[in-house]
This record gives sequence, C-alpha cells and structure tokens, in this order.
Amino acid sequence: MSDRVTRKGKNQVQKEEPKQTKKQKVQKESYDIGQLQDIAHQLRIHSIEMTIASNSGHPTSCASMAEIMGVLFFTKAGMHYNPKDPGNFGNDRFVLSKGHAAPILYAAWSMAGYIDGTELLNLRKIDSLLEGHPVPKLPFVDVATGSLGQGLSVAGGMAYSSKYLDKINNRYWVLMGDGEIAEGSVWEAAHLASHYKLDNITAIVDVNRLGQSEETSIGHDINVYKKRWEAFGWKTIVIDGHNLNQLTDAFEQCRNVKNQPQVIIAKTFKGKYLEMENKEDWHGKPVPQAQVEFVKKQMKQQGGFTLTPEVPVQIEKPQQSHFTLEVNYGPDAKQSTREAYGKALVGLSKTDANQQIVAVDGDTKNSTFSIKYKEAVPTNFVECFIAEQNMVGWAQGFSCRGKVAFASTFAAFFARGFDQIRMGGVSGSQVKYVGSHAGVSIGEDGPSQMGLEDIAMFRTIPNCVVLYPSDGVSAERAIELVANQKSACYVRMSRPSLPILYSNDEVFQIGKSKILKQNNDDKILLIGGGVTTHEIFKAAKQLSEQDNIHVTVLDLFSVKPIDHDGIINAANKTALKTILVVEDHYQEGGLYEAVSSSLSLNNEVKIHSIHVDKIAKSGTPAQMLSLYHLDAAGIIAKVKSIIQ
Amino acid sequence: MSDRVTRKGKNQVQKEEPKQTKKQKVQKESYDIGQLQDIAHQLRIHSIEMTIASNSGHPTSCASMAEIMGVLFFTKAGMHYNPKDPGNFGNDRFVLSKGHAAPILYAAWSMAGYIDGTELLNLRKIDSLLEGHPVPKLPFVDVATGSLGQGLSVAGGMAYSSKYLDKINNRYWVLMGDGEIAEGSVWEAAHLASHYKLDNITAIVDVNRLGQSEETSIGHDINVYKKRWEAFGWKTIVIDGHNLNQLTDAFEQCRNVKNQPQVIIAKTFKGKYLEMENKEDWHGKPVPQAQVEFVKKQMKQQGGFTLTPEVPVQIEKPQQSHFTLEVNYGPDAKQSTREAYGKALVGLSKTDANQQIVAVDGDTKNSTFSIKYKEAVPTNFVECFIAEQNMVGWAQGFSCRGKVAFASTFAAFFARGFDQIRMGGVSGSQVKYVGSHAGVSIGEDGPSQMGLEDIAMFRTIPNCVVLYPSDGVSAERAIELVANQKSACYVRMSRPSLPILYSNDEVFQIGKSKILKQNNDDKILLIGGGVTTHEIFKAAKQLSEQDNIHVTVLDLFSVKPIDHDGIINAANKTALKTILVVEDHYQEGGLYEAVSSSLSLNNEVKIHSIHVDKIAKSGTPAQMLSLYHLDAAGIIAKVKSIIQ
Repeated sequence: MSDRVTRKGKNQVQKEEPKQTKKQKVQKESYDIGQLQDIAHQLRIHSIEMTIASNSGHPTSCASMAEIMGVLFFTKAGMHYNPKDPGNFGNDRFVLSKGHAAPILYAAWSMAGYIDGTELLNLRKIDSLLEGHPVPKLPFVDVATGSLGQGLSVAGGMAYSSKYLDKINNRYWVLMGDGEIAEGSVWEAAHLASHYKLDNITAIVDVNRLGQSEETSIGHDINVYKKRWEAFGWKTIVIDGHNLNQLTDAFEQCRNVKNQPQVIIAKTFKGKYLEMENKEDWHGKPVPQAQVEFVKKQMKQQGGFTLTPEVPVQIEKPQQSHFTLEVNYGPDAKQSTREAYGKALVGLSKTDANQQIVAVDGDTKNSTFSIKYKEAVPTNFVECFIAEQNMVGWAQGFSCRGKVAFASTFAAFFARGFDQIRMGGVSGSQVKYVGSHAGVSIGEDGPSQMGLEDIAMFRTIPNCVVLYPSDGVSAERAIELVANQKSACYVRMSRPSLPILYSNDEVFQIGKSKILKQNNDDKILLIGGGVTTHEIFKAAKQLSEQDNIHVTVLDLFSVKPIDHDGIINAANKTALKTILVVEDHYQEGGLYEAVSSSLSLNNEVKIHSIHVDKIAKSGTPAQMLSLYHLDAAGIIAKVKSIIQ
Repeated sequence: MSDRVTRKGKNQVQKEEPKQTKKQKVQKESYDIGQLQDIAHQLRIHSIEMTIASNSGHPTSCASMAEIMGVLFFTKAGMHYNPKDPGNFGNDRFVLSKGHAAPILYAAWSMAGYIDGTELLNLRKIDSLLEGHPVPKLPFVDVATGSLGQGLSVAGGMAYSSKYLDKINNRYWVLMGDGEIAEGSVWEAAHLASHYKLDNITAIVDVNRLGQSEETSIGHDINVYKKRWEAFGWKTIVIDGHNLNQLTDAFEQCRNVKNQPQVIIAKTFKGKYLEMENKEDWHGKPVPQAQVEFVKKQMKQQGGFTLTPEVPVQIEKPQQSHFTLEVNYGPDAKQSTREAYGKALVGLSKTDANQQIVAVDGDTKNSTFSIKYKEAVPTNFVECFIAEQNMVGWAQGFSCRGKVAFASTFAAFFARGFDQIRMGGVSGSQVKYVGSHAGVSIGEDGPSQMGLEDIAMFRTIPNCVVLYPSDGVSAERAIELVANQKSACYVRMSRPSLPILYSNDEVFQIGKSKILKQNNDDKILLIGGGVTTHEIFKAAKQLSEQDNIHVTVLDLFSVKPIDHDGIINAANKTALKTILVVEDHYQEGGLYEAVSSSLSLNNEVKIHSIHVDKIAKSGTPAQMLSLYHLDAAGIIAKVKSIIQ
C-alpha cells in the first residue's frame, strides 16, 4: 500500500482506536439510523465525485448499494474488521462481486479511515491502486472482480477454509448485482456453499432492476430470486435495500443462522437518491456535478461521523511451508503421469505438518487420481462435483487463505473455467491446476474428453508456470516444484501408462528441459512432451539402429518458462540446425509455437512440427497417435523427409 | 452417412413405411407397455454388447435411461421423427446432453431402422461414425456432447428458432444426467428457456443417483430437483423413470403445456435390471457378458417389435443466402471497429431476404453495438443477458437451424464460454463470434474487461477463421466475409474510435493481409492489427520524416489463416529481413506467435515483438498503449534499437 493511499483523510469515519473485542453472538442492537443514512449519502457523494474526476465509472450502480455498504462497514451487525489492518487473517472479508461498483468500495474504506480522502479522486488513474475494478494489490481485496458472477465461488472456498480447516470464526460477505445472478457460476457456487453448510457466508443481492443495456430478465420480481435461492438451500431474507432498520435486522439474523448460508435479497433502485433514480441509460456513466448538491440536501449531518466497526481478534496469516517428496520407481515400472499426481500429493503430505495442501476435484478424482489424496488426507480434499467454474473459484479461495491449492479435472474441462482462471491471473492467484487426459492419446472417449488446447490456454495466463512431465518421476517432481512455486501453475498429465525415463533422484527445474539422447553426429533435434517424448525416443532409437540416422532427443518438460538456451544449444549442435517438435496438442499456442516464438530471433534454425492437425475422433490410443503421425512411425517418416 | 452404417439390420423395429401424419395435439393414447418394456431391455442389451465389443464405455449409464429412450423413440407421446430421414428439418430433435450414454442413442437409432445392427459393434472404432460421444457427423446429432451441461443451451437456441423464427411445430427433447445438473450452464439455459416461454422444449433428467466417482451431491433427493426447476420457471413432472405408464403420461403432458418449458425428473437406478443395479464403481466400465443373458431372462418378447414412431410433416432445410454490403465512409470519418460491427449487421440485413441472420448478446449490446441490429431487425436479435456460456450455446443452436448466428460480447468474456466454443469446434459449428473491447486500449476499466487472450483462444478452434480489422471499412468487410463463411469465425473488435484506412471498395479476403506502406529502401517490416496498425503507421511516418528510416507497414487482418506468402514476401524485401510484430494482446498465442510459427521454416527472417508483457491496469487508453510500448513512441524506440 503506498503512503499516498493510506494517509489519513478528512472525511474518514474512524475517530478512535479500534476496540479489540472477542467474536460473539450478536445481540439485538439499536443503531443510529440517522447517522447511518448520512454515511450512506456520503458514500454516494464520494462515488459521484470519484467518477466525475475519472470521467468514467458506475455511480448509479454505487448509489443502489449505499445503505448496504453503510451497514456492512459501520455497524456491529455488519463486517467485523480492523480498518487499520484490512488484510488481517482474523477479519471478516468482503467480496465485491459486482466489481464495477468499485468507487463505493474505496469510499467505504476511506470513511473507515484506511484510504486518504483525496486519493479517492485518483480513481482509475494510472498511478493509483484504485483501479476501475478492484484488484488484490489492495489488502482489503482478496480477488480481482469485474467479470461478473465469480465472487461467490471464491468466498465459498475461503469460508470452507475458515470453518473446517483453520477453524477461524470470521465471516464472508459477498455483494452481488442482480444482473450477474444470470451467470451459471453463481448457481454452482450457491449449491456447493449450501451442500457444505457454510453458515459463515452471507450473499447480498443488490436488486436494482437495471442491467447495462436494458432491464434484467427478472426485474423487480423479488419473489423469483427468493424461490431460486431457497431451492438452492439458502436462508433467504427479502428486504427493502434502502431501509436501514430492515438492513441491520437482516444482517443480525444472518449472523445467527447455523449450518446454512444466507442471502439478503435487497430490493433497491439504481441511482437511488439521485435525480436519475430508477432510470435507464445511466449505466456506467458519470452523473452531473449537481447531483452532489442534490444528495447533500438530503443529509442531516455532513461529516463528523462517529460510527465504528467491530474489531475482531486479530490473527497472523500462517507462513507457507516448504514441501519435499521421496520418489521411488523401479527401473521397469510403468506409470501414468495422472496417477503420479495422486502419488505425489500423498508424498508431499508427509512434509505438510500444517496441512496446508488442499485438493479439489470435479467428480473425476478416480480418473485424475486426486482420490489418493482424499484417502490419505480426507480433511483436505474437497469434492466440488461437476461444476468446474466454481471448483476453480474455490481453489482460488483456498489460495487466498494461505493454502496450497491444487485443482484437478480433465485438461479439456479447464476450458469451462477459463474466465475464472483468467481473472485468477489478474489476481495473481497461486492455484496449481492439474489437467489429466491430455491429447488424442486418451483414445476411445473421443474429442469431447481430449485436452488439445489446454497448453495454449494456460500459457496466456501472466506468470503462470506450465509443466508437461513425461514419466512418473518427472510428474512427481513437477508436482513438488509447483507446490513450492509462488504463482499460478499448470501441470499437464496424460492418461496412458508409460515407462519410467528418469532416475528417482533426477533434479528438475522450472524453465529447464532435459536431453535424453545426444551425440556428435546428430542430424536434427526432436522435441517432445508427455507421450510424444516416448515416441520420439523410440523413433530416435529405430532411426539410429536401422538407418544410421542420429538425432538429439529433448524432453521439453517446462513449457513456460521455456528453456530457450537449452533448446538453442541443442539445435545448434545438430548438423542441419533443425528442430522437429512433436506434440499431442493443436499447433496453435502449444509446444511448437512456444519453441518457434522463443527462437524467432535466431535465424539459423528451422523448426518443423507434428501436431493434432484436424478434429479428433474415437479410436485406440495407438491408432490416434498413428492417425496424427505422432507415433514413432510417423516421426521417422517426417525425419526422413526433412533430412533428404 | 456411410452405407455401412445405414444398411438395414435384423434388430430394427421399423417394419413398415413411416406414416406421414399432420402434427396435432396428442390425445390420451394407450400404449403396448409390455412391448415397450422389451424394447427398453433390448436397448440395454445392445448397450452392454456394444461396450463389451469396444472394451470401454458406459453401459450402466445407458441402463438407467432405457425406458426413457423406449418411450422417446417408439411412442406417439415421444419424439415425432422420420427414421429414414433423421436429419429432416421438420423432425423433433433429440439432444443427448449426457453424451457418455452414446451407445443407447445408437442402439435406439438401430432399432428404429436407421443404423445396421452389426454396425453397433463398431462403437468407438476408428473407422466408425459411432464415436465414444455423439458428434454431428451423424444426421440425428445436432451438436457434439460429452462435456456435460451443454445440451440444454443448444436446444434452447434451436427451440427459439422453431417457435419464433421458422414457426415450425417440432419439439426438442434433451436428456440430461443428474451429475451434470451441477453445471451452472444448465441454470443459465433453464432461465432463458423459461424467460422466452419455450414450450417446445422438454428436458428429461435421468436421476440415477451415482456420478463418476461417488454419489451426486443431491443423490435421490428428487424434491430438490423439483424445487430448483420450478423456481427457474419450468413445468416439472416427477416420475419413476422405469415406469412406462408414468413415462408415457409425462411425455403426453409435456406435449400439451403452453408457454412454459417442461422437465421430467425421472428417478432411476444406474445399471437398472443388471446385477450391478444401483452399485458404485460401475461408471464407465463394460459389464460381463453374462449380463446380456441376465437381461434377456427378464424379457417376454425378443425381437419382432412392431412399435413405430409418429412421423411429422417433412420440411426441407432452407439454403443459406449470400450476403453483401455497401460500405460508406467519408475520407475524414472516424469509427470504432466495434460500432462498425453493428453497422455491418444492419447493412447485411438488406440482402437477407429470408432473415437468416440472428444476433445474440449478453447484455452488452450498447457496447458491442449489436443494438443497431436489434433496432433494425428486432425479431432476429435475442438478448441472452449476462450468461455467456448459454449465449454461445444458443448461437450454436441457431446455427444448427440454418441461421447465420452472430454472438457478441466483450472479447474477454468469451473466455466464459470457452468450453462451449471448444465443443462447437468438435461439432463444426458455424457461429460467428464478435468480441469487442479487445486489449489494453480500452483504458480505464482495467484488466478484468480487457480481452488479452482471445486470439490465442479462438486460434485453437479447428477451422476457425480469426480476423482482426483495423478500421471501419475492414471491420464491415470482415463481418461480410464471415457472414458468408461456412465455418466458425472470430472477429476481434476494438473500443477506440479510429481513422479510416481503406477506401470503401477495398477488397478483403480471408487469409490475406494488407500492405499499407512499402518502399524499396525499407529496413524492416512492421506488422500490426487493430489499434496497433494505426500506431505502426504513425511510427513509420515519423521515422521516415524525422530520421529518414523507412519501414514496411502491414495490417495483418487475417490472423487465421495467416497470409504466409504476403508476410514472407514483404519481409524478404526489407534490407534487414526483419519483422516487428506489435499487438495489443499477450504474446502467447497472439499475432507474434502466429507469425513466428508461420515462418518457422524460413531461416532468413528474424522476428521481434512488442506485446502486453505484464498484468494490465487502469489508465487512459493512450497511457495504456504507452505503458506497454505499443504506441508510436514505443515502436520508434524499438525500431531504432533493432536497426542499430
């Protein structure tokens, strides 16, 4: 946090040192409703002024939720937090799922005393942390929002962590827009939260009726929302979202519900208390300066507010452990890399004294072999069922709570969570994604189950490490590496059982490839990953024995970052200065493009490619490899055509 | 359809020529329940034998739905279709959303007389169309399934098309597993179908209790399903899914519901009538041969079935029109490419005599400018609200019904529908995706709203055309090109208003780039797209005027297929045989990698890159371009460093 942001401002509410109080059941309180209303109006005014200053933003979307924010930030019924230490592990956490209402979030933290009032006017400026949508550079933000319908999933993972793993008595408050309730991810999240009886999570739906381009499909038909949330197992409370008595009552009720998440369905009006209240065509636009005066006239007290939040017991965030692993394969062992994943998690758990590793899966645990971890450490495995968007969100939630979160499903099905993975990239989330059943080598199940674009997808995530192991040893080492890596990671696993290539003590590194075969008279360099590493190795052996053609064999292992030096050195040693990349993936964004772009400034090396070049189909794994010329025979033919 | 698949087999049900009957309200019928039960058992036996023959597949998932399939295929209450012409436009359509139950789908079409009985045993074989999960190479399949929770969305688009656009009286039947109900996309689809009162769609949920790796999260708590579907606006009917009287009654009821979609929630047992009925650990595994006899013993009649489907009036599928467009910009006009999208759709509509163009959007129509099409052709614009997965599915549904379907939202938010887009690739779906707000040049809204991985994503889709226009003329021409293109297409649009670069009659082609500036003494080749085309043009002008450095300027336009020859020829004419690609996208999978991989066999040309190289933030568009060195100043500096 820059000094500029945290300097004290004049508009802040916080007037005294926060009281350290024990978390306890909230008794019926009486609240200074008049002052709360003025605080809500002041939040409106900030939102108007900030968006005028930035000449963009969503003041009317802020205005509909001003009373909610007042109660949330400045009453005992609402959030319990320390405004001087917004990131504290013991605080209640607030997730603004409707991220476009960021101005009022910043305004609330300013009135709570954390953000300088003058900084508010730097909203959306390039040198300010107050971005157009919230990002976790701010300690009161856990995850980036702005792509709608994602907040509840992340809060679900955090709430599960507090309730069942850390056993911390804090709560999670998620503010959602009504438009985003149409996102299916919301219902995935709603289902899992009630399935796991997360009573420490409260959703507040700001039903202001108006979407971006027209009325939402449900409008102000509040009962529809009520029936849906009830059907998904939530305690539902319907209120007038501008009525502060109803709001404080609702928040108190939520604090006392056991074994069930709660939702406050708040009927509100977009642009409330502004002249454009409940009017269309005011989404995402600053309003005229005159609206500040218009709101001010409705206030009794302007400044000098005395309400303070309840401060919970403060807790230090646990440090993350370092994990190590024993790998133990016999020389003739065969192993699928997907099964090595399960083995590795179990292995890592032996050095996980604080049980920080959490694994989630989407009802594929007997295929991804995360089931082994469930059997070994049942408390730290969470079944998320067939709902990959929410599974990704929960994993991010665990990561926010200091866990080392692994999320596994078929590589193909991570496509379902791409937007969540993308937003995790914006957040700098450190989830370890593990995709099984990569490529056509899965065989008979056919293309719907084949991950053929997963590397392309994960390579686009900033700072995401992408590893692609080829045997049991490298797979277990890959999992060990990513467990200790402070970034998002993706490890690509294959279905077939494969021979072991490496000794148990082989050392792998992120950013380094492995040369499996190299001689002085090699003609070209073959690069593979996963199953194709085995096929290029077979091809190389056969070419050498039957045709006296020698080639270098390189197992790429680290796709991102890529081993630029290792590749260029190996290529330069070949007689033809030529590379052939063989991959069980589409060409676009895969190994070949990673290698090509890495070498684009080298104008000595030519790069050829064998890849999945058309829509896949069903067949045996061997037939599939053959069909796309990914097997030894196809590789041999290609090598011969190249060196002719 | 290969002859081998369509040859008549001995197990077929169809014994007489199908009767041509007019579609009419179904009266209460009496059904030969004994024969229906035997048909269901025969479907089980086929499923067992097929999966034994393929040594893989999901017979127990077929067994739970055998009675449903019997009623669907062989009663008047069920599907009305012509087994001799499964693709007929007038038929009811069946979507097997739980695609892993493909064997029983093929078995039903065999018993209906379309597929040779002996062909069934080629399930999952490399030379058979009977893949592990259904694909539309088969005329009775509209879309590939196998990634769960997608079928209802596609059926929604098809049902909307029949009810409101084609005004055809056919119905859509979607069979779903209970596990897939956890997918949020199901609830997006459920919501929109009831919102648009699609009474011609019936979902059947096969609640067999068991998922892949454990019991589903809802198990046999049928009432939970009932409440949820009711809350989402569906007529719900709960039945014993193995009781043929209840099934036929339910199907008849559904046929008579008006203005509301219907769901039959069928309580079933996985592996029903097999020895492994209702047992765990039998997902996705063949069962022993003895189970054939076990089922046979439960049959009264084995073969010689006489039940036939009701055949509706047959309708020819309309041919797709050819569309053209007038483009009309003055020389000093400025235009954002996103707004050009809306203009182009309106322009195309003037040659769309049969109103085949349908546009969908996800509550961003006033940002993507699809609103212009809504205003011009309101019948053919469908608002899908904030639910991008379902929006993509609906667009695919429209495409299945012969429409030219355009789907628009922010480029970033297509990531939400990546799995649907991926499955559309498997289907060969011809949807035209149009993403606005690409890149950091959107400015203040920040990274959650910036499409920075969209090109990488769409490039992975087999046969998908990817165009990236840089001005109003090329944007309108891009829309004209994709409207007439028989494949999936993606057009990337930008937010800023930009000068016009091309004359109104400039001819654009898929697979061709445009040279905007070229001289004999050019040092290097600059390649841009969208906003960066303007920046490289500015940079080139300035370099020429101020530094006497001359460069070639190429507007990439067609990212996939890429203009390999045009690029290589332009690069080879430069003194340094060097390219600089400048793109408002992450490096991975974007323009630079497309160019690099295209040129990987050319070892004369070096390729440099300027791209978005770290997580983006808020700021003005100009500041954002400057921050990532994507503006003229950054490009000039890079060019100078290259040519030193």
